[in-house]
Amino acid sequence: MPRYALRIEYHGAPFAGWQRQRAHPSVQQALEEATAKLGENTTVTGAGRTDAGVHARGQVAHLDTERDWDPFRLSQAINHHMRPLPVAVTAAAQVAPDWHARFSAISRRYLYRILPRRAPAALDAGLVWQVRQEMDVDAMQEAANRLLGRHDFTTFRSTMCQALSPVKTLDALDVRREGAEVHLYVRARSFLHNQVRSFAGTLERVGAGAWTPNDVEAALDARDRARCGPVAPPDGLYLMEVGYPEDPFA
Amino acid sequence: MPRYALRIEYHGAPFAGWQRQRAHPSVQQALEEATAKLGENTTVTGAGRTDAGVHARGQVAHLDTERDWDPFRLSQAINHHMRPLPVAVTAAAQVAPDWHARFSAISRRYLYRILPRRAPAALDAGLVWQVRQEMDVDAMQEAANRLLGRHDFTTFRSTMCQALSPVKTLDALDVRREGAEVHLYVRARSFLHNQVRSFAGTLERVGAGAWTPNDVEAALDARDRARCGPVAPPDGLYLMEVGYPEDPFA
Repeated sequence: MPRYALRIEYHGAPFAGWQRQRAHPSVQQALEEATAKLGENTTVTGAGRTDAGVHARGQVAHLDTERDWDPFRLSQAINHHMRPLPVAVTAAAQVAPDWHARFSAISRRYLYRILPRRAPAALDAGLVWQVRQEMDVDAMQEAANRLLGRHDFTTFRSTMCQALSPVKTLDALDVRREGAEVHLYVRARSFLHNQVRSFAGTLERVGAGAWTPNDVEAALDARDRARCGPVAPPDGLYLMEVGYPEDPFA
Repeated sequence: MPRYALRIEYHGAPFAGWQRQRAHPSVQQALEEATAKLGENTTVTGAGRTDAGVHARGQVAHLDTERDWDPFRLSQAINHHMRPLPVAVTAAAQVAPDWHARFSAISRRYLYRILPRRAPAALDAGLVWQVRQEMDVDAMQEAANRLLGRHDFTTFRSTMCQALSPVKTLDALDVRREGAEVHLYVRARSFLHNQVRSFAGTLERVGAGAWTPNDVEAALDARDRARCGPVAPPDGLYLMEVGYPEDPFA
């Protein structure tokens, strides 16, 4: 059976997340129902199980098919059958039978968008987290720097997290003003459940002046979920890219 | 009567454009109905009459009120009464009684977003013009350069245009790749009706290789509306900024 890698973009709003669930629509289900219409009854395995409402520019998944497909035609056929849902396969490639979207991945990049503004978001509703206070970006970056490197991230981990260990290595957490917004660029080999949204909610507290960078470091050191800032909403979160030793879409 | 300047953001999709019409919802109407709910029956005069479906980040308008308002409170009250429409007043300031959103303006900046991709736009549906071919950005820039400066832009002007003269000065038309998209940055003192969308549709033909920069120059020189490329859809167009001798919101 040939195996294909897919790069996938989606708007998170209509979905209960990536993973298939009994009672709620998911991105995985949208892809699997579309491939079923091609006569391919298969499981689509994603690199990251994004939560309800979280967006993706560059989710990656793999699937095995009965027939041989031209990868571009496969992506077009899946896209055709997913209309009008806001999901699209933006790249496809044949990969080795032992290539795995999740286990072969060596990095994940996320973007978190914060819009500090009192006026409602007219153009970006559902695509940003809107906060009321102005953000002190320098203080946020200073706090973010305390989180870099290898740590026990229990404080920034959902109690639902199923990872075996809370120890992860955070490779990048850059805070940048982009026009009226503040963007967080986050990169690691892998993340705990709700880790990026826990970072975003905590750094927002620093940006608003309610927390200091030292408070964030103390919260990290406490390894106590109760010490985390509020978990930021899914609207501002984007899975941007999943990295592999060799780019399957190059 | 005090006069206020407003900066306004909107998503163009639900509106028949800026200008009030009898049978269709408009941005002007949304603002005027909201101010009426504050007990202020007034006309809201915009700097640019954007067409149906065109978005704005930085439309500017003015209005006169009976009462004195704190500008920020005025913007909040208007925003409150416009919910849930995708329009927001993002800045407000009191201005001199002879200040005029349209006639005091000395520049307009527009952005046009093109997404060259076969896969549907999942995250940016309605916010970009999606085209099927890859774009040659260098050729587009070369063609754009032929349009710079003072010209009779009859070719790039809607037959509905009410401007007295087709002669305008185009100050900037920059073509840049931004991630997967191609962005056109356009600036002039003022524009003819459909001018930016006529540029975008024509430059897309150059990007796709169907037209050369020389073809664009010949079309300009012909001063013939029939020589224009297809007019690009409103989805990709954003009124970004209106410039004044002094920034009223500074």
